[in-house]
Amino acid sequence: MTIKRGKFITVEGGEGAGKSSNLAFIRDLLEQSGIEVVFTREPGGTALGEDIRDLLLGHKHTGMASDTELMLMFAARAEHLARLILPALNQGKWVLCDRFTDASYAYQGGGRGIDMERIRHLETWVQQGIAPDLTLLLDLPVQTGLDRAGLRSEPDRFEVEQNAFFERVRATYLEIAERDQHRVRIIDAGVSLSQVQKQIERAITEFIQVQGNLND
Amino acid sequence: MTIKRGKFITVEGGEGAGKSSNLAFIRDLLEQSGIEVVFTREPGGTALGEDIRDLLLGHKHTGMASDTELMLMFAARAEHLARLILPALNQGKWVLCDRFTDASYAYQGGGRGIDMERIRHLETWVQQGIAPDLTLLLDLPVQTGLDRAGLRSEPDRFEVEQNAFFERVRATYLEIAERDQHRVRIIDAGVSLSQVQKQIERAITEFIQVQGNLND
Repeated sequence: MTIKRGKFITVEGGEGAGKSSNLAFIRDLLEQSGIEVVFTREPGGTALGEDIRDLLLGHKHTGMASDTELMLMFAARAEHLARLILPALNQGKWVLCDRFTDASYAYQGGGRGIDMERIRHLETWVQQGIAPDLTLLLDLPVQTGLDRAGLRSEPDRFEVEQNAFFERVRATYLEIAERDQHRVRIIDAGVSLSQVQKQIERAITEFIQVQGNLND
Repeated sequence: MTIKRGKFITVEGGEGAGKSSNLAFIRDLLEQSGIEVVFTREPGGTALGEDIRDLLLGHKHTGMASDTELMLMFAARAEHLARLILPALNQGKWVLCDRFTDASYAYQGGGRGIDMERIRHLETWVQQGIAPDLTLLLDLPVQTGLDRAGLRSEPDRFEVEQNAFFERVRATYLEIAERDQHRVRIIDAGVSLSQVQKQIERAITEFIQVQGNLND
């Protein structure tokens, strides 16, 4: 018997988009449908990846070059794919990941200004064709998100950036969603949590149904 | 007045090739010629690079994927170039570096079996045409080197590899030297230290002379 390969779902969004609570909601939705889910995050997801995350998000290396930042993101991603994501998918499990390569385009491309083609070279190098099957983009106006995020303490090395940075991040995410409509579903995250969750539930339910139909 | 760009010299070699003492000797030779030298090493050379070095050489992450290892090497290199090597060269200083990209070909390519073309993609991505002006390859039979290195304590994550690994590393270094004869000078490091230093002195003196003549 061959095991049917699992599906790879990613969740993206800027500051204050409510990723954490919505990720937990998505995980519950999947598990209630009888799907075995591996829940993970980027940068991180492996022991080495979490050490790289500390280098990236901590304030020890504030002056790091943009190229270094991007290479570290992809180093963590290479480990994540090899050690966690691909093994899980090959075992038929679904992988739910808090951020993935779209975030590299949004933050290092849109935010830091690294040429998108240069990012694409690393994506191809590291992923060799592996990509999410579904991405939910939690989108909301930058100021709304920052106001919400401001309620939390201790901003990381990205969260201390200025508004213009986050506007470029958001614009890049929306460009990706426009270009890759088959994969990316935009969720309006500027509304109440229950309204956000309704949209998410619809997107996830549809995705599961399509997968079921493909099995028939 | 425009400052004449400095020269970039790297020293490569396998285990027990005597890199440390010979690097100190080279540094003295350069300084005695009135050249201002920045001495550095890879992986490392910057605060962030040294943290990455710890991830790479320590035993905490023994199972890291080869792709991850290579990406981390190039992440450290991106930072090294941006923050230390290029600024120094642009100030007219010479940079003397213990290992550089040849080591990625030798260890991750030859040693770990990563396709050389894949390494070349990252080299192009990170270095964008920057390369050493002179490389001294301290070459010696693997067993001789391992016997010498065995006198030291506490092997790192690379030093615990087996003979066949180091034979592939050496073979790759020699292929690079064969292909890039203009840049790479092979130093026979299997002889006595004074004989090694005679060869190094000749290579460095010639290189300095050629640079001087180019200035005329």
